[in-house]
Amino acid sequence: MTGPDGDIEALIALMARLPGLGPRSARRAVLSMIKKRGVLMEPLASALQRVAISARECVTCGNISTRETCVICASEKRANGTLCVVEDVADLWAMERSGVFAGRYHVLGGVLSALDNVGPDDLRIPLLRGRVREEGITEVILALNATVDGQTTAHYIADELHGTGVAVTSLAQGVPIGGELDYLDDGTISAALRARRAL
Amino acid sequence: MTGPDGDIEALIALMARLPGLGPRSARRAVLSMIKKRGVLMEPLASALQRVAISARECVTCGNISTRETCVICASEKRANGTLCVVEDVADLWAMERSGVFAGRYHVLGGVLSALDNVGPDDLRIPLLRGRVREEGITEVILALNATVDGQTTAHYIADELHGTGVAVTSLAQGVPIGGELDYLDDGTISAALRARRAL
Repeated sequence: MTGPDGDIEALIALMARLPGLGPRSARRAVLSMIKKRGVLMEPLASALQRVAISARECVTCGNISTRETCVICASEKRANGTLCVVEDVADLWAMERSGVFAGRYHVLGGVLSALDNVGPDDLRIPLLRGRVREEGITEVILALNATVDGQTTAHYIADELHGTGVAVTSLAQGVPIGGELDYLDDGTISAALRARRAL
Repeated sequence: MTGPDGDIEALIALMARLPGLGPRSARRAVLSMIKKRGVLMEPLASALQRVAISARECVTCGNISTRETCVICASEKRANGTLCVVEDVADLWAMERSGVFAGRYHVLGGVLSALDNVGPDDLRIPLLRGRVREEGITEVILALNATVDGQTTAHYIADELHGTGVAVTSLAQGVPIGGELDYLDDGTISAALRARRAL
């Protein structure tokens, strides 16, 4: 029995390798693209081609950009003495969407993990000390995920920066806005209780 | 505040228009593609380009193909006198995956719908009579969705083919394999009961 023919089959197989898409949704996506050839499929092919050629890591912070130095590192306004350390570019984008951080970033490219054999030299940790000194950073904010590996990495970085005189802080842990206690895990409730504030 | 830069932002916006992807999963997909540039992003860009140029509807059955006549219509082996009528190409592919139908297809391109103003001439219904005669079809299997519009369309086609001498059948309705009665809707249970078989 035959399915869609060669080229279409190959396209579906590639689409199915994207995170969040499986074989079924890849087929749906391909059919929908074929139906919207001019407004979706052709522009998407060109956009992919363009980004595949131009996307690179910012040499300073590790953000993904089409320039050698990303927009954030290139902007003088963002040089306010604070540096936000994130695990990967998706986290940087999440911070930017919130629109509340006005400084620059440092993308580690992962977290320390004994299990996956990821050491400090596999990440952008060695570059951090140099940036703190050269950019006159006064505060390093560790915005790492609240996982075991994330917190291990946070402690490692805090130790590394010890003695440089820079303040090392981390995001607060607690009840998320709109969060219902009944649906929260015990760890979050216990962290929120420990960090309780006077009203 | 700035997010990913121009070209990357544009790519994310296009990806987010695919069915099954929203802004968040589009961002994840784009980041993952940038990380796998050589093995995923570049091949995907070329595959899209290739299919955008070559994909077309089979002139006979409406299947999507890169040739004027699709592989199924081109194969003499599939000319066994049965024609399976489906709503769209995704349904044709689903039938092919099951690997149990050896005849040819006729893709309607939708179903009749008074609400959406879809009449017989908006679909491939007028072509059906001609195919039945020219290809010596003895049985037309209506594999339409078990929705109101799908069933209306099935009845309309059965009426259209009345008097041509062709047998018109439809897929059986009943309990899906692995289905638990407790989770089935009343309509399915009632259809399965009406169509009960002696063991």
